[in-house]
Amino acid sequence: MDILTRVKEAKEASFEMAALSDTLRTRALLKLADELEKQSDRILKANAQDVVCAKEKKLSNAFVERLTLNPAKIVAMAEGVTTIAKLTSPIGEVVSGFVHENGMKIEQVRVPLGTLLMIYESRPNVTIDALALAIKSGNSMILRGGSDALHTNTLLFTLFTEIITSSGIPNGAFIFIDSPEREILDTLLTFHDYIDVVIPRGGKSLKSYILEHSTIPMIETGSGLCHTYIDKSADIKKALKIIINAKTQRPGVCNAMETLLIHSEILPEIAINLEAHLMEKGVELRVCQNALPYFPSASLATHEDFMTEYLELILSIKSVSTLQEAIAHINFYGSKHSEAIITEDYSHAEYFLDRVDASCVYVNASTRFTDGSEFGFGGEIGISTQKLHARGPMGLRELTTLKYKIRGNGQIR
Amino acid sequence: MDILTRVKEAKEASFEMAALSDTLRTRALLKLADELEKQSDRILKANAQDVVCAKEKKLSNAFVERLTLNPAKIVAMAEGVTTIAKLTSPIGEVVSGFVHENGMKIEQVRVPLGTLLMIYESRPNVTIDALALAIKSGNSMILRGGSDALHTNTLLFTLFTEIITSSGIPNGAFIFIDSPEREILDTLLTFHDYIDVVIPRGGKSLKSYILEHSTIPMIETGSGLCHTYIDKSADIKKALKIIINAKTQRPGVCNAMETLLIHSEILPEIAINLEAHLMEKGVELRVCQNALPYFPSASLATHEDFMTEYLELILSIKSVSTLQEAIAHINFYGSKHSEAIITEDYSHAEYFLDRVDASCVYVNASTRFTDGSEFGFGGEIGISTQKLHARGPMGLRELTTLKYKIRGNGQIR
Repeated sequence: MDILTRVKEAKEASFEMAALSDTLRTRALLKLADELEKQSDRILKANAQDVVCAKEKKLSNAFVERLTLNPAKIVAMAEGVTTIAKLTSPIGEVVSGFVHENGMKIEQVRVPLGTLLMIYESRPNVTIDALALAIKSGNSMILRGGSDALHTNTLLFTLFTEIITSSGIPNGAFIFIDSPEREILDTLLTFHDYIDVVIPRGGKSLKSYILEHSTIPMIETGSGLCHTYIDKSADIKKALKIIINAKTQRPGVCNAMETLLIHSEILPEIAINLEAHLMEKGVELRVCQNALPYFPSASLATHEDFMTEYLELILSIKSVSTLQEAIAHINFYGSKHSEAIITEDYSHAEYFLDRVDASCVYVNASTRFTDGSEFGFGGEIGISTQKLHARGPMGLRELTTLKYKIRGNGQIR
Repeated sequence: MDILTRVKEAKEASFEMAALSDTLRTRALLKLADELEKQSDRILKANAQDVVCAKEKKLSNAFVERLTLNPAKIVAMAEGVTTIAKLTSPIGEVVSGFVHENGMKIEQVRVPLGTLLMIYESRPNVTIDALALAIKSGNSMILRGGSDALHTNTLLFTLFTEIITSSGIPNGAFIFIDSPEREILDTLLTFHDYIDVVIPRGGKSLKSYILEHSTIPMIETGSGLCHTYIDKSADIKKALKIIINAKTQRPGVCNAMETLLIHSEILPEIAINLEAHLMEKGVELRVCQNALPYFPSASLATHEDFMTEYLELILSIKSVSTLQEAIAHINFYGSKHSEAIITEDYSHAEYFLDRVDASCVYVNASTRFTDGSEFGFGGEIGISTQKLHARGPMGLRELTTLKYKIRGNGQIR
């Protein structure tokens, strides 16, 4: 079957998906969670093939880390599916409603988006999160994962298809694109009439490519040039703990910190300790001219450094003289993902929360919490960094739209 | 000042706009409403110049109707501004919130979108609706209205600027583009970093153009190929009243009906009366082969007719044999704007409401009600026919986005 026919079929199936009972959806997902745990060894074996290839290709550490599964990650994947299964379905929720003065009853109800095209990097857990969220939110989905995870994803999709087929869910609603060629992506991007939304995750170049080649409405996700700002009044102990966590706990993901801003007055006090802790974790420091004297191991940061989402154990540091300077830097360089301030000053905290333009703004906590599971969504389709439709971690509700239903008895204008 | 500098200034001013007190916003809008009524004669004089030019250019009746103001329309404009002024501000609303098990307080609050680019047809009331909604929702706005309304819009924008300047609202937040050249639009569409959302209203060709030339997130509005379906069980009196209203009360707007579907079993009973009423209103009928014998005055409809948003006193009619056929026709040809069924059958009504894929789905009422004012929004920025972000009439809430604020005390992962 050619791709257009399959996509048309997925669009048709989306109407069926919307009408499925939630009991059936829940049951299928619980079976899927079970199956993932049962097939753990097979999944790890397939994943090992991908990891070997990735290492042979000398792909970056961050890349290989995101690609690699282990038993704990598979358990986490299955738990995510179970959580999603047990969430209340957003479909059919009456969001608002009123009676028009002419007697018409107007209500706004939540309905699935329709057919989603997910384009994502080589992270196998995304395959399962995305499929589970699609099932629960009543959407059809076309998946195109990174080619370096092809062995893992192919197996995961096969397991998924077996489960849904035996659960009475239309399997035409789901398409897994196993061809790595650009042409097939180009073709998909022309199906404006059958695909309702495209959700690209991953690198900037992919997103620019899609923006330029597609007329399908898009949600940008996953660019994370995240900052933390240590205010003059910060509690230094909290600051150290949060900085180490935000930079080193999992440097390869989008909510990890890339740039640290430090108030110039607190810089001398915090620098030595900070450098020691970061060096211990193997973090390379690139520091602005003013801060350079305080970090003996560091090199000089360039403008380019402050523009870069490293996704590695590298940290840019800049000294700033005011809260306003920190906010201006963040609003200019940030990717509108997650930004944090470490402060004990109440007014500074509130000012920062109000003025920083990002999907998630933190006081005294690590940016690493911007995550669908942490927010109680079970999993996530991505972290939206745009302002339209969804902002921050996208769970079930973000995969729906609204529709007005109006019941009258002969009203005219 | 060049356009880039002005747009950067509008973006800067958007942060100020977000922080304005609602009292100040309300006061400015009430003054604007007053001023519009006071300056009615001046506005009508400017508008008369535009109308003369439009008639000289032999623009369509629908076009001239949308362009033309009269005293009643100015009063309605002012009333819309007053309604918007008095609405509760959506800004700052806490939409949801919870405490993470680690103690972080996570809340989702409503914030302005930022800077909006409105591109619209020659309808002067849109200028005022858009500006009033922008003020109340705390957004900056760049307006580019149809060049045929230039005299009217220039005056309206001048009046607006005087009011906001004297009210303490940053007037750099608002830009009115008075040049009709395409190049300036092309330039604006490259300002991805400073314009958060583009909202085009009007014709298909404009929207396709923007989709192809812009990377700014967009909300499609205002294509209205609306259907009404007369079911077998319809109350014929209601049907006639609704059909006449939906087609003829104001044929030049997007929520007017363009295609009528009639169940074949009720067709013989309703056709003569229907034709008589429609002919009396000057409606030209284009009818499918099967229905043709019942409408002596009609010509044969082509495939093209069923694809056309006439915006004129022309109506396509098609006979269908089942409810499902009607829905399939609507989901294929419709622009996902407003669709109606006339029926006394409960199950058919609910089936139609559930299965028709459109922003507003009606039972036994005219599609003409899809309108911001009718829905209690005071005015509207447009009627969204897409699924992302907003669907149906867009009022204040649709001009906002959400932001997570997270307050912690040292939490790490």
